Amino acid sequence: MNQRLRGKRVLVTQCEDYMGPPTVEIFREEGAEVIADNRDLRAPGACEALVAGSGHIDILIANLAGPTFTGIATSELSDADFATTFDLMVHPLHRLTRAVLPQMIGRRAGKVVVYGSASALKGMKTLAAYSAARAAQVGYVQSVGVEVASHNVQVNLIAQNYVENPSYYPPSLTSRESFQASLRRQVPAARLATAREDVLFALFLASEESNFFTGQAIPFCGGWVQ
Amino acid sequence: MNQRLRGKRVLVTQCEDYMGPPTVEIFREEGAEVIADNRDLRAPGACEALVAGSGHIDILIANLAGPTFTGIATSELSDADFATTFDLMVHPLHRLTRAVLPQMIGRRAGKVVVYGSASALKGMKTLAAYSAARAAQVGYVQSVGVEVASHNVQVNLIAQNYVENPSYYPPSLTSRESFQASLRRQVPAARLATAREDVLFALFLASEESNFFTGQAIPFCGGWVQ
Amino acid sequence: MNQRLRGKRVLVTQCEDYMGPPTVEIFREEGAEVIADNRDLRAPGACEALVAGSGHIDILIANLAGPTFTGIATSELSDADFATTFDLMVHPLHRLTRAVLPQMIGRRAGKVVVYGSASALKGMKTLAAYSAARAAQVGYVQSVGVEVASHNVQVNLIAQNYVENPSYYPPSLTSRESFQASLRRQVPAARLATAREDVLFALFLASEESNFFTGQAIPFCGGWVQ
Amino acid sequence: MNQRLRGKRVLVTQCEDYMGPPTVEIFREEGAEVIADNRDLRAPGACEALVAGSGHIDILIANLAGPTFTGIATSELSDADFATTFDLMVHPLHRLTRAVLPQMIGRRAGKVVVYGSASALKGMKTLAAYSAARAAQVGYVQSVGVEVASHNVQVNLIAQNYVENPSYYPPSLTSRESFQASLRRQVPAARLATAREDVLFALFLASEESNFFTGQAIPFCGGWVQ
Repeated sequence: MNQRLRGKRVLVTQCEDYMGPPTVEIFREEGAEVIADNRDLRAPGACEALVAGSGHIDILIANLAGPTFTGIATSELSDADFATTFDLMVHPLHRLTRAVLPQMIGRRAGKVVVYGSASALKGMKTLAAYSAARAAQVGYVQSVGVEVASHNVQVNLIAQNYVENPSYYPPSLTSRESFQASLRRQVPAARLATAREDVLFALFLASEESNFFTGQAIPFCGGWVQ
Repeated sequence: MNQRLRGKRVLVTQCEDYMGPPTVEIFREEGAEVIADNRDLRAPGACEALVAGSGHIDILIANLAGPTFTGIATSELSDADFATTFDLMVHPLHRLTRAVLPQMIGRRAGKVVVYGSASALKGMKTLAAYSAARAAQVGYVQSVGVEVASHNVQVNLIAQNYVENPSYYPPSLTSRESFQASLRRQVPAARLATAREDVLFALFLASEESNFFTGQAIPFCGGWVQ
Repeated sequence: MNQRLRGKRVLVTQCEDYMGPPTVEIFREEGAEVIADNRDLRAPGACEALVAGSGHIDILIANLAGPTFTGIATSELSDADFATTFDLMVHPLHRLTRAVLPQMIGRRAGKVVVYGSASALKGMKTLAAYSAARAAQVGYVQSVGVEVASHNVQVNLIAQNYVENPSYYPPSLTSRESFQASLRRQVPAARLATAREDVLFALFLASEESNFFTGQAIPFCGGWVQ
Repeated sequence: MNQRLRGKRVLVTQCEDYMGPPTVEIFREEGAEVIADNRDLRAPGACEALVAGSGHIDILIANLAGPTFTGIATSELSDADFATTFDLMVHPLHRLTRAVLPQMIGRRAGKVVVYGSASALKGMKTLAAYSAARAAQVGYVQSVGVEVASHNVQVNLIAQNYVENPSYYPPSLTSRESFQASLRRQVPAARLATAREDVLFALFLASEESNFFTGQAIPFCGGWVQ
């Protein structure tokens, strides 16, 4: 590998969920010093304690995941389920960002990369809470990205879908011909992305090579959203 | 007027705030029977009670407003302020929609129109909470709009900005030459919309003439966002 | 009807194609004086002569249609076919707009409404020339819309798809179960729009009620694009 | 450098214009064998001859530039100027792409990267021809990207603005305080991108690391468009 993150200290949240494991692995291969954390970020003070305890952070990988509640009709979606998506994916995003910004602004260097979802950009049925929370991440990133760009701090989001993940796409699903047919019909690339491909895009957004990107939610979904 | 809403029962929330007053006035001119409600929708059960007490609702105007907290840097934005925007603008949107959908789906007819914000589509500085909450509304509308469209229920959002409103644009502001210069620089239309113009778009989205629109967040901002 | 275009002089181009016939019919029902023209707009001077011969034009309905060449792989798409889409849909748009703008700017009032296509916003296979030409219309409308908005002239585009049209959707196609299944899968509204619904949106964009819209390409496709 | 393009044969068009020089330089540093061509691509057969004479092409960098005609009001924009932008930027894009696709599809590997413009995404005054032509590129890329993705050929576009370029931003302009103030007001990053930064994004899109991107027009403009 190219050691593209050599000398960089990277905080990865929810390191055992969603894009956590491949991010930790590949970022380390690329030379980063990774702080891989797995605490529940909903607890009061958890985000602040995590950032305070991490010291110098060059790059925050906001890897925030939660249940999608897919399949539940909007007319049946409980307040508790609705709130859960925001508690897991939106409020911690603000708390983490708020906590890392001062040091990044102070050094005039820093990156926040959010693993988000393309469901924020294109509606999917029975996915109201998840879509709303992922869209809130997009709105947050757009606003904060614009706010801190002149300090040379970049905040961007990967609007992903159809990325290999053992929870969302278990072999029992991906091995079905009906699943493959659905992929061919809905995803121009006609396949799932590997987790590595996704992390390599996060790597691009985390590197100095992407300093002119800011406040953007970039689709990563094989052409499903363009 | 043309009585374009004759025979329609319309629920308008937060009827004394944001787009409430002109909506109630113009919708009544157009023949609607308007239920103008002003209760605080954050209270437990408030949304459900409002819908239950309203009986037949053809059109829900989700007029949900709150403070923007503009001017507060993201690094200084408190958990309480952040949560307030969601408590006022996002959670009630779900509760109201959830409560009205069954009757609308049952009748195969109904409209939800959300007065949202173009700040959901384009980042503005020191507006992180508001932008995130308004974007959550967009994500919600996109998902639910797709979900219920085949039942002939339409859910859409007005992504507005630069609309006359005595709270946001008091005469002490609009009379300044610097404000007018800023309008000319930032808004292609070089003026504010009247509240009436905004309501007439809501009227279009509330009428039977827009039945093929669904799950859309349509910019209404004089070309600021296209 | 409501005579919403009473006193307006409207030029409709290619009046026997695409959205021409229902536009002429419904706009006349709404009180407009419609100049329905069907000349070939590719001939040198044709656009200029049409506008010059039309006198006072309040509203230009740029109804420009051509073959889609769908089904031809991009690697097989000839220069002639590629150029045809631009000759029919893009160059006349500029010539017509250029010709009507001076009188509209001079009166500080006027509308250009383009019947475009959602294929400009979302890629479809074997539709490269058509998509590119329709996207050129979008780029043109965005730029000109911004340019002339401060003169109170509005230029907007309907990014449509799945609208009933005897050429694109003959009964031999729409009566097939496979077509209906495809609609249900791809179009949230699960149906085609009637031509009337489409024209009613053009009517909204042509009326004084939409003066704050400018330079916009608004999806009209039952949720296929949001 | 990392030799990220080692073993790749890359065709760069209009190699002395727009992003040509830095692309040739940096892609060579990265190990590519670059065919840097500077012929006028408007001549009949020029695109076909170029591709035929280039042999194996892994990556086509469609670097197509032309005058912007900015400052000319749309009502004054001549047919000749309007056509020039399409002759330079749109028709050659199709001819080049059509010519390279068969070999790329045949090998199930290949990339087309277009240096486009963010003016395709957001309207700017007195830029109608250029905006329309750049938008045509976007529509083309979206359609062809979707069409060839399942063959593992990726077609994407950089929607750039505010990139250093001696023609658009001469020192006589960039040294002015009024220019710097305008940058701070309009571009969240508050600066121009270096040409190198832009090329590094093209490098990402040209590399195997971006195989899941397809048919996308990605903003590269310091947050001006998000």
